[in-house]
Amino acid sequence: MDSLYFEDIRVGQKIIVGTHVADKAEMVEFARRWDPQVFHMDEAAAGTHEGLLASSNYTMCVVTRVIGLRLHIRTFGVMEYNEIKVNAPVRPGDVLTVSMEWEDKRESRSKPDRGVVLSRIEVRNQRDELALSYLATIMMMKRGG
Amino acid sequence: MDSLYFEDIRVGQKIIVGTHVADKAEMVEFARRWDPQVFHMDEAAAGTHEGLLASSNYTMCVVTRVIGLRLHIRTFGVMEYNEIKVNAPVRPGDVLTVSMEWEDKRESRSKPDRGVVLSRIEVRNQRDELALSYLATIMMMKRGG
Repeated sequence: MDSLYFEDIRVGQKIIVGTHVADKAEMVEFARRWDPQVFHMDEAAAGTHEGLLASSNYTMCVVTRVIGLRLHIRTFGVMEYNEIKVNAPVRPGDVLTVSMEWEDKRESRSKPDRGVVLSRIEVRNQRDELALSYLATIMMMKRGG
Repeated sequence: MDSLYFEDIRVGQKIIVGTHVADKAEMVEFARRWDPQVFHMDEAAAGTHEGLLASSNYTMCVVTRVIGLRLHIRTFGVMEYNEIKVNAPVRPGDVLTVSMEWEDKRESRSKPDRGVVLSRIEVRNQRDELALSYLATIMMMKRGG
């Protein structure tokens, strides 16, 4: 897997990063630990939500995991997330496909070894419905930086 | 713990919700599963980051957990997050305090049983440095809705 540096980012390029199956046991275990709402944990109690649905934190974690495993982005970290929109619910067994589109890039004003990249992330299910989308502002390393 | 409905929200009110200690083992286990970057997992390899730092997904999950355990917000879920800013890094042992401020509220335009609430969330460490902040747009239930 090649490392991805600031110089490698082509604005306008869209990448299908990978997929993750929203396993029911994984969703429920995640919710018990981090988002203990009945409609994330208990099928029977999730009636008003038309059944069990994933925590949006879970879906964001799925994105981070898929990107972390499939791309080797050389980064100092994400500085900011914006416009995180929770759209179609994520249900047990959903096959989630993560895509990234590079929307913008600029050199750092103060540090010559890095640059800022704006990326739009989308998560779609097996029916191509948009489940979650957001903008991430990432501080990326330059080659030899 | 009293349930919190749309009618209970007073715009301008700020609540200190609770605290969570960023346990090192918990941070590292979280990163292995969801955000497998060396600087979230391996102290020795985290040199360029001045030591191990938490995944921002971890910090968001801490917020969700603290709010879920300490407040009984009657909600249909978070619709949108905005302006998630990653400020001071979260390090092992940090004591994270979560606060919420109600910034705005409005009745749902289409559904009489609910309303939309805008909340600013802040996470501060034991030195009162802002670690993470964001805006959450929450769809809340009305009493008897």
